[in-house]
Amino acid sequence: MKVQVNEDVLAYMEADAVPEAQGSTNPAGPDGPQSRNSVVICQAVGRSIFTSSVSSAAGRVGFLLQKEEGKEASCPVLFIQLNELFNTPDGLQWKQTARWIKFEEKVEDGGERWSKPHITALSLHSLFELRTCIKKGTVLLDLDAHSLKQIVEKVIAQIDAHALRPEVRKKLMSVLLRTPQHHTTKSQLRRVAELGAACCRDKARNRSDPGAEISEAPLKEQLKNQFQKKIPAEAEVSNILVGEVDFLEKPFIAFIRLQEAVGLGALTEVAFPSRFLFILLGPRAKVKAYHEIGRAVATVLTDELFQRVACQAQDREDLIAGIDEFLDELTVLPPGKWDPTTRIPPPKCLPSPHKRISMHLREWKSHCNGNVSAADDRHTHGHQPVSEELQRTGRLFGGLVKDIRRKAPWYWSDFYDALNIQCFSAILYIYLATVTNAITFGGMLGDATDNMQGVLESFLGTAIAGAVFCLFAGQPLTILSSTGPVLVFERLLFSFSKDYSLDYLEFRFWIGLWVAFFGLILVATEASYLVQYFTRFTEEGFCALISFIFIYDAVKKMLSLADSFPVNWDYKINDVTLYGCICNSSGTGNASMLTEMLLPPPGSAAMQQGLEAANWSLLTRTECLQVGGHLVGNSCNYVPDITFMAFTLFLGTFLCSMMLKSFKTSRYFPTALRKLVSDFSIILAILIFCGIDAILGLETPKLIVPSEFKPTNSQRGWVVFPLGVNPWWVCLVSAVPAVLVIILIFMDQQITAVILNRKEYRLQKGAGFHLDLFCVSLLMILTSVTGLPWYVSATVISLAHMDSLKKESTTSAPGEQPKFLGIREQRLTGLVVFILTGVSVFLAPVLKYIPMPVLYGVFLYMGVAALNSIQFMDRIQLLLMPAKHQPDFMYLRHVPLRRVHLFTLIQMLCLAALWILKSTVAAIIFPVMLLALVGIRKAMECIFSQQDLSWLDDIMPEKDRKEEEEKLQRSQEKEESDSEDSEFLYQEKGPEINISVN
Amino acid sequence: MKVQVNEDVLAYMEADAVPEAQGSTNPAGPDGPQSRNSVVICQAVGRSIFTSSVSSAAGRVGFLLQKEEGKEASCPVLFIQLNELFNTPDGLQWKQTARWIKFEEKVEDGGERWSKPHITALSLHSLFELRTCIKKGTVLLDLDAHSLKQIVEKVIAQIDAHALRPEVRKKLMSVLLRTPQHHTTKSQLRRVAELGAACCRDKARNRSDPGAEISEAPLKEQLKNQFQKKIPAEAEVSNILVGEVDFLEKPFIAFIRLQEAVGLGALTEVAFPSRFLFILLGPRAKVKAYHEIGRAVATVLTDELFQRVACQAQDREDLIAGIDEFLDELTVLPPGKWDPTTRIPPPKCLPSPHKRISMHLREWKSHCNGNVSAADDRHTHGHQPVSEELQRTGRLFGGLVKDIRRKAPWYWSDFYDALNIQCFSAILYIYLATVTNAITFGGMLGDATDNMQGVLESFLGTAIAGAVFCLFAGQPLTILSSTGPVLVFERLLFSFSKDYSLDYLEFRFWIGLWVAFFGLILVATEASYLVQYFTRFTEEGFCALISFIFIYDAVKKMLSLADSFPVNWDYKINDVTLYGCICNSSGTGNASMLTEMLLPPPGSAAMQQGLEAANWSLLTRTECLQVGGHLVGNSCNYVPDITFMAFTLFLGTFLCSMMLKSFKTSRYFPTALRKLVSDFSIILAILIFCGIDAILGLETPKLIVPSEFKPTNSQRGWVVFPLGVNPWWVCLVSAVPAVLVIILIFMDQQITAVILNRKEYRLQKGAGFHLDLFCVSLLMILTSVTGLPWYVSATVISLAHMDSLKKESTTSAPGEQPKFLGIREQRLTGLVVFILTGVSVFLAPVLKYIPMPVLYGVFLYMGVAALNSIQFMDRIQLLLMPAKHQPDFMYLRHVPLRRVHLFTLIQMLCLAALWILKSTVAAIIFPVMLLALVGIRKAMECIFSQQDLSWLDDIMPEKDRKEEEEKLQRSQEKEESDSEDSEFLYQEKGPEINISVN
Repeated sequence: MKVQVNEDVLAYMEADAVPEAQGSTNPAGPDGPQSRNSVVICQAVGRSIFTSSVSSAAGRVGFLLQKEEGKEASCPVLFIQLNELFNTPDGLQWKQTARWIKFEEKVEDGGERWSKPHITALSLHSLFELRTCIKKGTVLLDLDAHSLKQIVEKVIAQIDAHALRPEVRKKLMSVLLRTPQHHTTKSQLRRVAELGAACCRDKARNRSDPGAEISEAPLKEQLKNQFQKKIPAEAEVSNILVGEVDFLEKPFIAFIRLQEAVGLGALTEVAFPSRFLFILLGPRAKVKAYHEIGRAVATVLTDELFQRVACQAQDREDLIAGIDEFLDELTVLPPGKWDPTTRIPPPKCLPSPHKRISMHLREWKSHCNGNVSAADDRHTHGHQPVSEELQRTGRLFGGLVKDIRRKAPWYWSDFYDALNIQCFSAILYIYLATVTNAITFGGMLGDATDNMQGVLESFLGTAIAGAVFCLFAGQPLTILSSTGPVLVFERLLFSFSKDYSLDYLEFRFWIGLWVAFFGLILVATEASYLVQYFTRFTEEGFCALISFIFIYDAVKKMLSLADSFPVNWDYKINDVTLYGCICNSSGTGNASMLTEMLLPPPGSAAMQQGLEAANWSLLTRTECLQVGGHLVGNSCNYVPDITFMAFTLFLGTFLCSMMLKSFKTSRYFPTALRKLVSDFSIILAILIFCGIDAILGLETPKLIVPSEFKPTNSQRGWVVFPLGVNPWWVCLVSAVPAVLVIILIFMDQQITAVILNRKEYRLQKGAGFHLDLFCVSLLMILTSVTGLPWYVSATVISLAHMDSLKKESTTSAPGEQPKFLGIREQRLTGLVVFILTGVSVFLAPVLKYIPMPVLYGVFLYMGVAALNSIQFMDRIQLLLMPAKHQPDFMYLRHVPLRRVHLFTLIQMLCLAALWILKSTVAAIIFPVMLLALVGIRKAMECIFSQQDLSWLDDIMPEKDRKEEEEKLQRSQEKEESDSEDSEFLYQEKGPEINISVN
Repeated sequence: MKVQVNEDVLAYMEADAVPEAQGSTNPAGPDGPQSRNSVVICQAVGRSIFTSSVSSAAGRVGFLLQKEEGKEASCPVLFIQLNELFNTPDGLQWKQTARWIKFEEKVEDGGERWSKPHITALSLHSLFELRTCIKKGTVLLDLDAHSLKQIVEKVIAQIDAHALRPEVRKKLMSVLLRTPQHHTTKSQLRRVAELGAACCRDKARNRSDPGAEISEAPLKEQLKNQFQKKIPAEAEVSNILVGEVDFLEKPFIAFIRLQEAVGLGALTEVAFPSRFLFILLGPRAKVKAYHEIGRAVATVLTDELFQRVACQAQDREDLIAGIDEFLDELTVLPPGKWDPTTRIPPPKCLPSPHKRISMHLREWKSHCNGNVSAADDRHTHGHQPVSEELQRTGRLFGGLVKDIRRKAPWYWSDFYDALNIQCFSAILYIYLATVTNAITFGGMLGDATDNMQGVLESFLGTAIAGAVFCLFAGQPLTILSSTGPVLVFERLLFSFSKDYSLDYLEFRFWIGLWVAFFGLILVATEASYLVQYFTRFTEEGFCALISFIFIYDAVKKMLSLADSFPVNWDYKINDVTLYGCICNSSGTGNASMLTEMLLPPPGSAAMQQGLEAANWSLLTRTECLQVGGHLVGNSCNYVPDITFMAFTLFLGTFLCSMMLKSFKTSRYFPTALRKLVSDFSIILAILIFCGIDAILGLETPKLIVPSEFKPTNSQRGWVVFPLGVNPWWVCLVSAVPAVLVIILIFMDQQITAVILNRKEYRLQKGAGFHLDLFCVSLLMILTSVTGLPWYVSATVISLAHMDSLKKESTTSAPGEQPKFLGIREQRLTGLVVFILTGVSVFLAPVLKYIPMPVLYGVFLYMGVAALNSIQFMDRIQLLLMPAKHQPDFMYLRHVPLRRVHLFTLIQMLCLAALWILKSTVAAIIFPVMLLALVGIRKAMECIFSQQDLSWLDDIMPEKDRKEEEEKLQRSQEKEESDSEDSEFLYQEKGPEINISVN
């Protein structure tokens, strides 16, 4: 017997031990020797360098898994509870000491607190002890029992009479049937109530008499347990009971699987039916030995692979094979380099159990088929196959038709899918964000165009364009907005019009029509398939440029504001009497007054003169200038405090937004509250600083909004007349800037669309690149005719929209990240948001209280936030870090540092070039230069290997060299996956798991 | 053979396998069967729950360790290098892929970058494969060879002729002798130079011909390697060579220990002699199998226990026993819950290898003596035995005499121990900190006492008192300074003197004398032994109060500053002409002027009148008030911009200090630069904001410093006359406030002294609590006579002093924290610092450019920094955190949350009471209330268990109940250590000394 134990432990490492092991286990299962024999045959995949055969354990496990293949639901989630026996003054008592769903939660000292969920770190020793337990103990599979008493009776009956004397049996029975003490999770309210009673030295804690026999029905406490919510409804329980008793001389061990899951009354913390039981009682042993074995069995039971084995096991040997397979996959940490008491927090992403199981199955099967080739479904990193939405049909408007065909069947569901409370909060959030955007962009646009397009136009345009888009677009989750590039262009256009004395709106009208025309051509020719060439390099170049423009503009605005309200830096407090500003009548008036003074008139004249002087001095600045006077004095040009106040508001708004945003990841307050604050961070920051401004009451510059419903600038109407002011040929020449605008719009729109339709969002209803562009083009006509701002998809706000509509699994094990299930794809939220925005036009009386510096602060925030989200910035930061302090980015593991730096430097140069271009006379052609980024990226393939680019960027599609490339890629990939095999199995491109232990 | 392999793997878990295993290994060693037999006898400590005997592996290891006991140096540090064979286009080539000292560093993809040091996570599988390798491979212990060629020849010679054909031998030889490619660590300069060449597609990389035979002498590259610095000089190398070759059919395995460590030329990255070699070459196997075995052997060799075993091993079985022991102590992480590719960063604190080794030894020995009792040197948590310095002698001045006797022998070494470059930088740093402190406290004191003690006095006093203290004190690392409590007291004293028309300096003179007298009494009666009652509760209460006072004062000062420079909140830009402030002659003068105007005099008179009016209006504010005029106008009371500027400077200095301080932990720039910036953060912040202030040039309030060497306040001289102004009885009544001051000084001085003399600083020359207090008392006399500020030890700055004099081990393995060796205990640094401070009195012309808001900002920073360093604040933050987000503090694992909260609430109440007391008329008795904290802490023993208090606080010494307590404590401790055993072995009570030094 002894030799055999050893053999089995090593069955997976010493394949030549297999025949013997097989021989001893052959007559075990009732499943028939036929199927068993197939296990023996299928053993040749080399796991060891010494032999080329698979172990018997792997064979058994493969066989069990194969039996179960397809019946997904046969293995419910297991909730595992560890109860230990303690020697209290009141006698022996069971206490719950830990629980598992995926990760371990321990009852901390004092028994009042659950530890944070953590990964169970075991000693190898305890796992081997467990293996021996299963080997030597009683194993009852598919036991038919309906209460704990029945179970215990049947288990004890299994044991030889001479091994267990009757009185010991009785004692054992009584110990096992004692009521255990649980640590139930209480609601917040009850906790607070109990905190008050904290002084009374928890005497009332042991309410249940520990000696009492366990009750059959679940206790009130169990049913009230808040923890229940965390467990899926169909879950089953595994009870683990371990402890030391005096009356036993040898360990009493039982592993029980019940035929049907049975509720065992007060045994478990939660009122779920039990499936497995593991009982280990024994004489006094080394400190914590039983505890550790209990943890070991719990950990093995949390393993998805072992769970299947345990559900399917026919005999003891199957269980042991399961443990052996578990052992084979263990990760071990060396002693002395790691403190075993450190609690490792659960990682953010985990290997999928399905992958592991199917790997096992494949190994087993491939061997059965005599096929020893390496697994062929390697993770093809960097290669994204062209999605169905972007394939060319080759027909005019073919893509558009396909888009409409794809989206039409979903149209009605796009409305009734919105019937969820989550959509309500999404509406509120996105409404506020949209309004903020409308205000800020409206303010900026008004500023850039001399109020030809002001805040009111911004509101109106956003509402109309957004609503139309939401009703008809291919991707209704997109939120339209004025965007940075368009703003930049409008600014350039306006100053160009001014310089050449053209009528801005009329000029813009023709450009808009041309843009719409070009847009329709792009739709007809299915040009959207080009978005595949927008790699991360282009996206980031674009995004970084826009962000810098935001930041630069915000700061520039603030500095020009400081110029408008100059501070007297040379002010001396002592000279307060020497400062002043007097309204003087103009030169001639002054002279006549002087003569009047020198030639003394009668008393009344003096009086009159005094009066007149008083009148002059009573005039305000505006009045003085109106009546033709001029201001004289050394304080006329200075405005006290306003500049400082403006900068305070500017920086305050920025920092406050940043702080509130990052509040989400702080530890304080419940998650829901933090999320709320973080989601509304910008609105809150705006409100706070508007409040501060209002309270202090300084005359800071405020947002200009018309108080009635009419165009912000009185020189324009609601409809732009196509001809009249400008020469006739302008409508033809407009085609030239229109080319630039369509490039801009195409890039802005499609980059956003690519980001929104990324695979990781698991959209069900598909994208509509062509349809989206079609809608945007048509809207161009509408907005150009009415002189409203132009709209394209706004990345940041659309992402926020999707984020607020995320569906996540509600029950997740402690420590497990909630599973992402998809997005609520519908049209209603967007529609309602834009209707509300339209109604907000009447908010003008409120909006005029918003100081401009606050809006500039929001812009600064938006620029900085957008910058922070791109990898380019990470890489710039790398330039400043010594190699040893650099974070463990995935690409740093694979690309040499100096090549990373080179890539970054090239990107920086491109950006600098774009920036210079934007700042010079050539500014208006800068959209074309954005396209040049794609070319530069292409050229970089000569400097960088595809391998490097696949880590730093994406791979561009290539038709001509495709096959050749692919070959190269394959061979590289193979090499790569050889060296970093497991990395690819588990990790997408770079989650940084940063365990900061103690 | 097969059966035996299995047995041995499991020898440590299946004790009944021992006799056989023993039987098979008995004739192995040349060490004699006698000693071997003792191993067989000594096997009874129960590790398994199934048996009570120790495994043969443990027995062997115990025996080997015992042999080595005492000879510490016999096992040098091992540098382990893993070379792998790669199939390059140029043929087979060795490349270094990883290295170890304590932690693993991997060569990243691309071969140009070392990964961050991380803990090696292995698969259990690879360890078992390794075990089989040692079992089946060639093991050569104490091989006598002097070059790689010799070694390889001898190893190959060991193998049977029929197992290895001659041509294979030749091939094997040639492969093993190829020159490997290392990734050497280059200096920063070379890196930058190479970055420029990044475009040239690293063609020059393979400079050495891979086919060339390995050179005997170390290469230039090796000698230049920067990594060499990280390795101790006496280190030895272990070379691990693994790879796949075509010509072998079975793995070729060799484990070699050389008799003498030999430099193997270009084999190793660094030019150190090699001791161990592990060679594993074999046919193609599963992906990464050889790599993983190579990592496994490297990991086993990093283990301190196995290193000893490997050094002492007599035969193959000893090595296997070592591996088995290693296996037994492994920590394992379950598959599916942990991604094995995650790199775990090295933990901050590690289990000491000595502890592990001595545990092994004890286990082995205790068993040999038949003693199975639990280890008795349990970590006695919470019990600090009274240190020798604090034991009472019972004689008058007994403590003082003992202090002097203890310190006298070190006196001369206190000077020549300072001869180190580190002391120079310490001087610079502490000088700047002291000057900052002198300026800030001087400014505050001057403010509090109407400049009776100003900045100049502060400089002078600091210099004199500090220098004297450094020359004669018991703990010369202490830096004297004005401290918060004394400042508070001076403020109270000054306003008291003012209210009751007493002469402040004279009153203070008598108080000082009384304080000195009381101080001497305290020294005589050895009262310093009372410091044992100052637990963390008292320390934190004291510290929190001081911090709050700092913060409160800083903010209050700023608000009063805003009052002095009022902002005109109702200023309307449009009304600029209506604001003004005119100097008017007083009522009568005005009237006469009016009459003059009404009775027109000759032209000259009008001229004169105009002239006079012009003269009035040309008067500045001060001049106007001097000549009896008064200011009329609606802008006279307002000062523009100054308040905003002041707040900008205030918050700017604060935030800038915070940022620069935390710059130390950022990832940017080299460590040395960051440390420098962080160390000088406050000075830098002050300089930056003084610069900003100077550039903008606004008239912000500046620090008042006398431009010549004379008392700041002209009403006082350099010596205070004891009698004269106040009534004679004041000198007697002064004893009452003196009692308060001595309590304050005693607490302030001794709390600091306790903190500085903590065990963890490993001071060699001992403390001198009595001598320190004696010096402080004598200095009280000096400072009272000269009217300089009073000085006691300043915690923060003294800790900074010690911090800058830390001795740390210079060579530390990558990933390992440098070892703390002690402090450079000497008197010279302090002395020089104070001499320099004295010289700085002549800095006055520079100091007057410092704006007060900057100093208030520094004070705010000091308050906040001090608050952040105490556990009390952590616990307050816990109040706001939901339980599941709370950090994993040690005390939370052991004390129920509501008891932690209760403790925090009590502390908050005490603090609130102190604060209220301080703010009312009773303020002057607040030192007594500080003492009351000790009483309250005592009373809390009724509410909290000693167990809880030992985690949240320290245990107070108790004479009467001592034995009883100790018993209780013991039993608790036992229970505790039963449940959290390993925690205590490895972790001290959370070293929370979070020195945030300015």
